[in-house]
Amino acid sequence: MHTDGAAPLGRFVAIGGAEDKTSARAVLRRVLKLARTPVPSVSVIATASQIPEIILPMYQETFTAMGVPTVHLLDVRTRKHANDPAIVAQVSASDVVFLTGGDQLRLTHVLGGTELLAAMRRRHAEGAVIAGTSAGAAAMSRTMIYDGDPAASLHKGNVKMTSGLAFVPGVVIDSHFVQRGRFTRLLEVGAANPERLGIGLGEDTAVVVHPDRILETIGSGHVIIVDSWSIDQSNIAEIAQGEAIALSNVTVHALTAGQGFDMNARRVLPVETFAELNAPQLALPAPEALLAVASQM
Amino acid sequence: MHTDGAAPLGRFVAIGGAEDKTSARAVLRRVLKLARTPVPSVSVIATASQIPEIILPMYQETFTAMGVPTVHLLDVRTRKHANDPAIVAQVSASDVVFLTGGDQLRLTHVLGGTELLAAMRRRHAEGAVIAGTSAGAAAMSRTMIYDGDPAASLHKGNVKMTSGLAFVPGVVIDSHFVQRGRFTRLLEVGAANPERLGIGLGEDTAVVVHPDRILETIGSGHVIIVDSWSIDQSNIAEIAQGEAIALSNVTVHALTAGQGFDMNARRVLPVETFAELNAPQLALPAPEALLAVASQM
Repeated sequence: MHTDGAAPLGRFVAIGGAEDKTSARAVLRRVLKLARTPVPSVSVIATASQIPEIILPMYQETFTAMGVPTVHLLDVRTRKHANDPAIVAQVSASDVVFLTGGDQLRLTHVLGGTELLAAMRRRHAEGAVIAGTSAGAAAMSRTMIYDGDPAASLHKGNVKMTSGLAFVPGVVIDSHFVQRGRFTRLLEVGAANPERLGIGLGEDTAVVVHPDRILETIGSGHVIIVDSWSIDQSNIAEIAQGEAIALSNVTVHALTAGQGFDMNARRVLPVETFAELNAPQLALPAPEALLAVASQM
Repeated sequence: MHTDGAAPLGRFVAIGGAEDKTSARAVLRRVLKLARTPVPSVSVIATASQIPEIILPMYQETFTAMGVPTVHLLDVRTRKHANDPAIVAQVSASDVVFLTGGDQLRLTHVLGGTELLAAMRRRHAEGAVIAGTSAGAAAMSRTMIYDGDPAASLHKGNVKMTSGLAFVPGVVIDSHFVQRGRFTRLLEVGAANPERLGIGLGEDTAVVVHPDRILETIGSGHVIIVDSWSIDQSNIAEIAQGEAIALSNVTVHALTAGQGFDMNARRVLPVETFAELNAPQLALPAPEALLAVASQM
């Protein structure tokens, strides 16, 4: 792997939800490690949540217990907050920006077009990790799912989509995917536009989006890839709203920890690919050196 | 399509559950039509159900309302019942044998190795329709699923399987498939043995198993085909019970009414294939003539 000059240095980490309940915080530990700085500072944005006063202290406790000395709790509830220079400055000084769960529409409505969102994109380009769980993961899509009963999906118009935060181009990310049986949602999305890769994140599981559009699975469960590129027929353009969508020849992969996917080549990568990344924390002297290493990966 | 001398004349119809609630009994009307006799007699077997005293009268009312003059309600609760010559005689005189929902383990435990099951197989070979809904559909598999939480499936050992009634070889049938989000169950099954074709039946939807291993979709929802033949890697033989199963390159089709699947060629068949079968009831003179027609399809 290599990055060309234009490729951003940072990583996105999209987590399928419930990431701190079942596996001793392995996913969050990896998020911190990906920041490639010995003492990362973390900003937590709870815009998606309706209960930030409960969620934010939980993440403070979690990250503090993991040895993070500086945790900025950003209770960004309005677009005015999201343009507040003090908040933008905190994000601009963070090595990890973490988006909590909740409602992804709140995230896009509040953050869309703001200085805070611009700062997050800038930090990612500079090498920071932008991580999100549940709604915070779904919102990373350019076109994001924000609603749709899985039991009624794969019926035209059931999956509700709108513009996401557009961190990861070419994908549609769904969370709680295995636990809530959401396969039909990504099948419906794939029928509408087979070019978009469907990424279904199991709980306590995440996908790391590396440069060069390489995905890596971390955590205890599955990252389900729904690749609709291979579809050879569907009735979606002929049927009325609410009618059952037919489609044929979708390719599905179920990836577990250490496996990856090359979005450009559309192929599964074996565990060996990420052996280096999964090695114990490298003892490197300074963030600058770590960034230099990162740029060659 | 044609049948060779050994191929059975009858059809199996596996229904995904909830078949009489939402679409004015279209699926059950088709079951009766497939019997290819102007006045079909129907046997209903409620062995799977824990409430046969409620279920059986419901089906009597339904079939009677559809113009069936003779409905045998078979309250077969024990293996002794299933070897009762009077009950066997009723099934042997039926054009349609219908298995209700409930628990598929009850079906296999009570019917396995009995005269009643032998009579059903014989009647199918003679041209009768064997239909089943929910548990009655799942039990048609040679190796059948009888349990497995979808939210926990695709973890080794979660899907519980045992020997089914073996009506349809080479397939594993799951019901309530879309509504209960059971994709993970057939993915787990496919990883264990890619040769078996996974058939996931949506509610109020059914698959007709024609001679020559041709499947046809009927009803308002989806028949999901999970074809694992194309799998190129999985960790299933290496991991411990309960660990997440990785697999790559499963092919999924979502078929709607009129579409079919050729199990021998493993390819989707277009709606046109079944145009003749979906035409209005043919006015043919006698059951013998209908059987002759059926043998040439």
